[in-house]
Amino acid sequence: MANLKSKHVVWHPGALTKAEREAVTGHKSCTIWLTGLPASGKSTLAVALEKALGERGVHAYVLDGDNIRHGLNKDLGFSPRDRKENIRRIGEVAKLLTLAGVVNIAAFISPYREDRDQARKLMSEGEFIEVFVDCPLAECERRDPKGHYKKARAGEIPDFTGVSAPYEPPLNPEIVVHTDREVEAESLAKIVAYLEQRGYIPAAN
Amino acid sequence: MANLKSKHVVWHPGALTKAEREAVTGHKSCTIWLTGLPASGKSTLAVALEKALGERGVHAYVLDGDNIRHGLNKDLGFSPRDRKENIRRIGEVAKLLTLAGVVNIAAFISPYREDRDQARKLMSEGEFIEVFVDCPLAECERRDPKGHYKKARAGEIPDFTGVSAPYEPPLNPEIVVHTDREVEAESLAKIVAYLEQRGYIPAAN
Repeated sequence: MANLKSKHVVWHPGALTKAEREAVTGHKSCTIWLTGLPASGKSTLAVALEKALGERGVHAYVLDGDNIRHGLNKDLGFSPRDRKENIRRIGEVAKLLTLAGVVNIAAFISPYREDRDQARKLMSEGEFIEVFVDCPLAECERRDPKGHYKKARAGEIPDFTGVSAPYEPPLNPEIVVHTDREVEAESLAKIVAYLEQRGYIPAAN
Repeated sequence: MANLKSKHVVWHPGALTKAEREAVTGHKSCTIWLTGLPASGKSTLAVALEKALGERGVHAYVLDGDNIRHGLNKDLGFSPRDRKENIRRIGEVAKLLTLAGVVNIAAFISPYREDRDQARKLMSEGEFIEVFVDCPLAECERRDPKGHYKKARAGEIPDFTGVSAPYEPPLNPEIVVHTDREVEAESLAKIVAYLEQRGYIPAAN
């Protein structure tokens, strides 16, 4: 890289290379995209993963409805068009976080294959890791922590994924976790092993 | 934090605390917001700052027109409304990067005080560091690396900041750099000293 000494600068060199950035953080960056039905356990798993990675010195961050819907996407509603724009922006932010060197954990229902594939296409090969948080609808509905399924069945929430709107499971996800029959530590271990084995993060000591 | 072992999870604990995140990265996070006229030297300084911080092990990342206008904000044009939305989203993304633990360097003309203050208000006390990249209009116009000033004077670019649209200098920026009479190393040193003295980043060895 040129060392800019001139005060009459008319161009600027690129920022850090990917390798330089990895040298700063000590690991590769990627987006771990958790998709699944409402109440399948995405957010819980995302937060646990952030903590597990943080304990190993990996710089991870959860993007979810809490920090997106009330901020960047607060201008969006729930029409089909707005839902599409919601996921589009999330994909772009996930890309920026990945470029920034973070292991970004995105936890969104993201029911449509096309939208998830769109997010994948924004990134370089290997940067998008799709995790299907698989849990049968009946179990999600039994959990129903926010009472949303109940309201959806009563017709009070329109276009509710799993009830009155479709969920398209990933056809070829990098990882599948089964939150109905795995304890959290098992699901976490699958994801962490994937990251280790493929060299995203150093192996634990 | 509770250790979630149940497979019937109905809540999730918060993600990493700020202190836990700082322990992972080894420094505090913030947004360094560079504002100034077109061709005042914002992007060049931003990239140099990212590199200088990276060499010290600080996880920094530049947000600028290149990675925003062609991605997240590619649906936006240059109408007053779209410009406002452009800066609003940039502020939200800067906030997310800051929450994620990154020293985020935002380099945008951002000509209006109100818009910059809006971005500041999204963040916690001390997280928003406004840097006025001060350079006289005549010098910016002399540089004119992309020929935009020339086109603006010829009436080919409407609402061009500094020519046919206002630039409102910060009234109380945390840092001022003068790219017309400082070499880059001086401007960089000011910013790095600010970060060191206030404990955002460790002092250099």
